Amino acid sequence: MNFASDNHYGASPQILAALSAIGQAPQPAYGDDDVTQRVKAQLCETFEREVAVFPVINGTTANSLALATLVPPHGAILCHAEAHIAVDECGAPEFFTHGAKLVPIEGRDAKLTAKAIEQSLGHFQKGFVHHAQPMAVSLTQSTELGTVYAPAEIAEIAALAHSRGLKLHIDGARFANALAGLGCTPAELTWKAGVDVLSFGATKNGALAAEAVIFFDPKDARDFEYRRKKSGHLLSKMRFVSVQLEAYLKDGHWLANARRANLLAQRLAQGLSQVPAIEIVYPVAANAVFARMPAELAVRLRNKGAHFYDWGVSGGGSTLARLMLSFATPDDAVARFVEIARTG
Amino acid sequence: MNFASDNHYGASPQILAALSAIGQAPQPAYGDDDVTQRVKAQLCETFEREVAVFPVINGTTANSLALATLVPPHGAILCHAEAHIAVDECGAPEFFTHGAKLVPIEGRDAKLTAKAIEQSLGHFQKGFVHHAQPMAVSLTQSTELGTVYAPAEIAEIAALAHSRGLKLHIDGARFANALAGLGCTPAELTWKAGVDVLSFGATKNGALAAEAVIFFDPKDARDFEYRRKKSGHLLSKMRFVSVQLEAYLKDGHWLANARRANLLAQRLAQGLSQVPAIEIVYPVAANAVFARMPAELAVRLRNKGAHFYDWGVSGGGSTLARLMLSFATPDDAVARFVEIARTG
Amino acid sequence: MNFASDNHYGASPQILAALSAIGQAPQPAYGDDDVTQRVKAQLCETFEREVAVFPVINGTTANSLALATLVPPHGAILCHAEAHIAVDECGAPEFFTHGAKLVPIEGRDAKLTAKAIEQSLGHFQKGFVHHAQPMAVSLTQSTELGTVYAPAEIAEIAALAHSRGLKLHIDGARFANALAGLGCTPAELTWKAGVDVLSFGATKNGALAAEAVIFFDPKDARDFEYRRKKSGHLLSKMRFVSVQLEAYLKDGHWLANARRANLLAQRLAQGLSQVPAIEIVYPVAANAVFARMPAELAVRLRNKGAHFYDWGVSGGGSTLARLMLSFATPDDAVARFVEIARTG
Amino acid sequence: MNFASDNHYGASPQILAALSAIGQAPQPAYGDDDVTQRVKAQLCETFEREVAVFPVINGTTANSLALATLVPPHGAILCHAEAHIAVDECGAPEFFTHGAKLVPIEGRDAKLTAKAIEQSLGHFQKGFVHHAQPMAVSLTQSTELGTVYAPAEIAEIAALAHSRGLKLHIDGARFANALAGLGCTPAELTWKAGVDVLSFGATKNGALAAEAVIFFDPKDARDFEYRRKKSGHLLSKMRFVSVQLEAYLKDGHWLANARRANLLAQRLAQGLSQVPAIEIVYPVAANAVFARMPAELAVRLRNKGAHFYDWGVSGGGSTLARLMLSFATPDDAVARFVEIARTG
Repeated sequence: MNFASDNHYGASPQILAALSAIGQAPQPAYGDDDVTQRVKAQLCETFEREVAVFPVINGTTANSLALATLVPPHGAILCHAEAHIAVDECGAPEFFTHGAKLVPIEGRDAKLTAKAIEQSLGHFQKGFVHHAQPMAVSLTQSTELGTVYAPAEIAEIAALAHSRGLKLHIDGARFANALAGLGCTPAELTWKAGVDVLSFGATKNGALAAEAVIFFDPKDARDFEYRRKKSGHLLSKMRFVSVQLEAYLKDGHWLANARRANLLAQRLAQGLSQVPAIEIVYPVAANAVFARMPAELAVRLRNKGAHFYDWGVSGGGSTLARLMLSFATPDDAVARFVEIARTG
Repeated sequence: MNFASDNHYGASPQILAALSAIGQAPQPAYGDDDVTQRVKAQLCETFEREVAVFPVINGTTANSLALATLVPPHGAILCHAEAHIAVDECGAPEFFTHGAKLVPIEGRDAKLTAKAIEQSLGHFQKGFVHHAQPMAVSLTQSTELGTVYAPAEIAEIAALAHSRGLKLHIDGARFANALAGLGCTPAELTWKAGVDVLSFGATKNGALAAEAVIFFDPKDARDFEYRRKKSGHLLSKMRFVSVQLEAYLKDGHWLANARRANLLAQRLAQGLSQVPAIEIVYPVAANAVFARMPAELAVRLRNKGAHFYDWGVSGGGSTLARLMLSFATPDDAVARFVEIARTG
Repeated sequence: MNFASDNHYGASPQILAALSAIGQAPQPAYGDDDVTQRVKAQLCETFEREVAVFPVINGTTANSLALATLVPPHGAILCHAEAHIAVDECGAPEFFTHGAKLVPIEGRDAKLTAKAIEQSLGHFQKGFVHHAQPMAVSLTQSTELGTVYAPAEIAEIAALAHSRGLKLHIDGARFANALAGLGCTPAELTWKAGVDVLSFGATKNGALAAEAVIFFDPKDARDFEYRRKKSGHLLSKMRFVSVQLEAYLKDGHWLANARRANLLAQRLAQGLSQVPAIEIVYPVAANAVFARMPAELAVRLRNKGAHFYDWGVSGGGSTLARLMLSFATPDDAVARFVEIARTG
Repeated sequence: MNFASDNHYGASPQILAALSAIGQAPQPAYGDDDVTQRVKAQLCETFEREVAVFPVINGTTANSLALATLVPPHGAILCHAEAHIAVDECGAPEFFTHGAKLVPIEGRDAKLTAKAIEQSLGHFQKGFVHHAQPMAVSLTQSTELGTVYAPAEIAEIAALAHSRGLKLHIDGARFANALAGLGCTPAELTWKAGVDVLSFGATKNGALAAEAVIFFDPKDARDFEYRRKKSGHLLSKMRFVSVQLEAYLKDGHWLANARRANLLAQRLAQGLSQVPAIEIVYPVAANAVFARMPAELAVRLRNKGAHFYDWGVSGGGSTLARLMLSFATPDDAVARFVEIARTG
């Protein structure tokens, strides 16, 4: 019963098969191989436009390289106070941007609003050399609390950002889960709503180590390639990352995986919500369930083999459990967890 | 007939099989998995002592993280003028070290000597705040020209470096080829000769994307883990890198691969040296052959399907071809290349 | 009537005379001159212990170099959300530390409390590689709102910081004003209360461009000298900075200047507090007065020649005026400002 | 008899008087003061065109900020192997550029030639992501060996640089000495010959701490102001730097100072060249004399009170003395030095 993280699970059979099929035959290095070219075409098709695509190995790298390309050292990046880039990347964006500033903003359900962003922007004077200059907004989709931004919410934030000269970045480590939850198209959830650059995640949803940075206006990519190289993220045998993405995208594999994880989350939330002692504290819109429960129950669940993280500071006899569902979470893990919760 | 680079070839069947065996079952993330623990034990055994081991995805990263851990921003790193870190990494070491200085030193056969290092050190005054402070020497083993350092040569350089307070780093992207060529033990070629940290390569010799940074004194590793995280090189599913290393080390697979590549290099060199118009310009001690030939012959070889790089600036009707041999280079590629060279 | 900033005023006659007396005779460069040596002795005497002293040209540099010496790139610095280092230095600390993270904490009167710091520390897990690691607390003394920390408040914060392995830094751009306001000794306000490093300001209080970074334990200074050089802050003719500090410290000039500025602040606050429409919103403990007044009054004051900044976002017909007093503010400027405020 | 460095001498009476005249009256901070505005106008007039001007405190800062504005982290800067930026700034350019690469090129008399630059460029493949990308050439004028570039030499280098997309920077710490030696106009020695940005020095020639970065095309200055702020080099009381520059430029004071230093250099060189045991090893074109002499003679000169540096590695009973002349070197110091050299 592993609900600790969707990144604990391994890779899907389809993706492992694709990796295995690489073989030992030679191909040009550093992304000039056939697979990488094909993935670029797949992503243009997926997003219904010409995009610039750069495969990388994980989300921290995708986020940091995307932001460093858009934001100079004297820039600032507005994000939620609980955003992964702000809290869980050990300052990677600051390293890649050479010291730009992350501006943490509070907001309900781990979501930013145009209003909160506007208020935060009020603290920065444009062109005033003493102030870091806001250059980008970064949203997480789905968020760290398993909530999602609807296209209209993104569009409102994008309109504000663009009117002030900021770019809009999406940390899409769980983009597939958001998309599956919202039921719109990839284009509607990104550039049609005003998104400039997306960290397109695959690792948490079936791949071993693969993401893609996608610039919806290829001109924005500027010196991305040099930044990727200089930070050690241009692989000689790039096709081993690309081939994961290829299999991920093929025949809707990514969406099938995400739908399954989301479905399990719904099922888990529904089951737990029947237990009087448990409260589901955030809307379940993707593949995460946050359940507040008596501390004793949390202990009991763990004693019977459940893995999950406490979220934030617990106390007062109550535990806030983060329960992550994966494409590979067994059905019976959900059933068993609910059963233990119900019966103690 | 691909002799362009050993990083053009894919991965060995053993390593692909190991990757494929990962499956989708959960494991703790970020290197706390079983495979990563096993690889650490394997490398301690391989090097006959307790070492600190950090898997990473490629050589640029291994080199840059190792050097950044040892060298502060005001430090300097002495290396050969043709070293990969100086020439082919787009300034990655400068990025990871936050602006330390690489000091290029000339030397025959792409090798540094203790004497040349001592001479270079003469330009830096210790404790003089205006001078970058030499903190490390970096050697490439095998070198960019396919030559190798014998243990005694390393020991002499290490003794000098240590007497001046510098650490000794080895860029071992082709460490296995050097080892196979020299016929000594991993320990003899590293810490027994005074090496402090090794970039232990696997990518060029059978893996897809796997290297390990090995500190022979674990205390030297200091804040390596934070640097790896902050630069995006701590993978959530770290076992997919570790499993490549595990298969690489198992049953001497790495040395068998290296021996095969070296043997092909010997065979190629021997064949070409029979051709009067061709000169083998550097000692063939690992898996590279540098052959000077008439430009017309180079054109003809390429027209018949041979891939290789010109090395340095060609001219005067002559081409210096770098021919790299891989564990996966087909036997008949060597035979055919020699045949074309001989018959035109 | 310039109340815009204490850094608008020039330099005191004593300091200008000292500068002028430098003459053209030669002296060793880069701080090996007699004046710099004398200033170091003066500061050891002033603080009643052996300290490490480094003259620099301004507060941003003093703060950034001090923090960069104590905090590695993967570190975090806890400070007030309105701290100068967080808000008004365009990310200089992030640049000098190579990407460390500033953690803004809210607190009344621009002051941090041990309790608030402890709460913030709760968000960072020690040794957890995904979290930036808190390494220092930075306080501003006197604060951006003209309030001060008493020695006991500092001691409580220092005790907490040290118990968690953090160093305590003081941004003392207006250290003299705080000291004059509190009436304690320099030692009592710093190392005796647990302060590790002080940015000792002079520019705002009579000098043209001079501050000193003072490490109370000289061992903490580590590689400061290289950082100062590498960032362009080691002056060849360092004595021109040192001589300002020498004159500043001589015969209590610094404290006399600060007392005068503080006295004018008291007088201004007292005068304005008689005006029914005006509210003094923060305790006046140093050389700043924050006065909330009707927007029309602010306009009228400006029309009659008063210079001052609005603080924060004004609105609703009310202006929050920041009024800074300097050693060189003319007596009659205060009298006149009060008079206009009273009579409209 | 101080010939150690022109930065050992203090400041000229004119410049000290100007500093002293600043007084304590308020002025807008951060360069919005009257003096700074006047200096900008002076420099536009001096260089006969609209230029962007940024006062800073020293040469390391001027060079580093100028280069960081022109060269991204993945860029490379071509300079002489003995250039101050390469040898004597502890890697400051690498820090300010966030890890760009300095490429040292050998050349006679500390001078680069278009041919040597072209050869060096041959090692870098344009657009090849593995190679740092050459973005600027930096020349020192006058050079570290007291030689100068004639306008025609600069023009040839500028033409090459521009044809390859590189900018041309001049480290003009001793620009006045070069100008005085060559007898051309400031415009002829800079933008008319193709120079893009100049570090315009004053510190070594009469000021205490003042230089200006001058962009001949103001568009090239881009985000310079943010870089200056973020590195702590935007002074609140900027007028104290500007006022030095104002006095420096006024009534040809700078050229008078430079001419005097150059004249003393000529006189010293002439005197020493009469001594059979002494050889003047580089053309004396500015304010430096390099004299090779028996080691015993160097000892004797020092015993009688002469200060100077050995240049490079001495040995074999011979010393290469660098003798720097300043605007403030007393006439009789030169006469006495020659006399001792002659008579032993």
